[in-house]
Amino acid sequence: MTEQIKKEITSLVENAKNVYVSSVGENGYPNTKAMLSLQRDGLGVHYFSTNVSSKRASQFKLNPKACIYYCDEPAFHGLMFIGTMEVCTDAYHKELLWREGFERYYSKGVTDDDYCVYKFTAKEGRYYPGSSKTFSIEELL
Amino acid sequence: MTEQIKKEITSLVENAKNVYVSSVGENGYPNTKAMLSLQRDGLGVHYFSTNVSSKRASQFKLNPKACIYYCDEPAFHGLMFIGTMEVCTDAYHKELLWREGFERYYSKGVTDDDYCVYKFTAKEGRYYPGSSKTFSIEELL
Repeated sequence: MTEQIKKEITSLVENAKNVYVSSVGENGYPNTKAMLSLQRDGLGVHYFSTNVSSKRASQFKLNPKACIYYCDEPAFHGLMFIGTMEVCTDAYHKELLWREGFERYYSKGVTDDDYCVYKFTAKEGRYYPGSSKTFSIEELL
Repeated sequence: MTEQIKKEITSLVENAKNVYVSSVGENGYPNTKAMLSLQRDGLGVHYFSTNVSSKRASQFKLNPKACIYYCDEPAFHGLMFIGTMEVCTDAYHKELLWREGFERYYSKGVTDDDYCVYKFTAKEGRYYPGSSKTFSIEELL
């Protein structure tokens, strides 16, 4: 992968407000939803916050295969990662992702039993434009 | 479903420039990509154009289970449909979707062997905000 492509990918991820997160449902259909881009650990690990009781959290617990997609709509640039999604309910991850105002969604605060964190670990990716070939995450890091 | 929700869903779909289209890959991972919102038949059938040689077209031929997602990012409204994706290579559908300038992608024109049409037929949906419950497509039509 060229340095130019790495730069474009980094910029796309850093500037994204939303990320399109996909699971595979119990009946085998893909399920997609926009989630806020909150926190990352480099380009390989991406975190999201959600409700334990959500349909998507149940799906990821049954099947952790996931896809996250970053898109610059006006430029029509798209970055897809596939990897695994872990549903974290431990205090460390819940504190890591907690933001001011989250009480709106999780009324009991950071220890709310219905608040959890998705930890997505990328395995491989595809970027358009560019070669649009699949790359392993190691090539990007 | 209330008339108000139907109105919001219709407006979201009519104003969308891009749609997030998801398949399930050979290895069971979901795959998502932004595609241009080109043409529909009401709210139940949605068409897209792409290359026969694309990775996604191969995936849909093997597994037609699909998801399409419309999003109004600033308002954070999202509409997910799940259903089946048919990869059409017949003249009728190719002519239906053909647009001025497509020669850029399919150099041989409307009969280009690498040009095909995705026909997505919705089975059920979810809309956020609103009830965020799954509804059958019949409730919406």
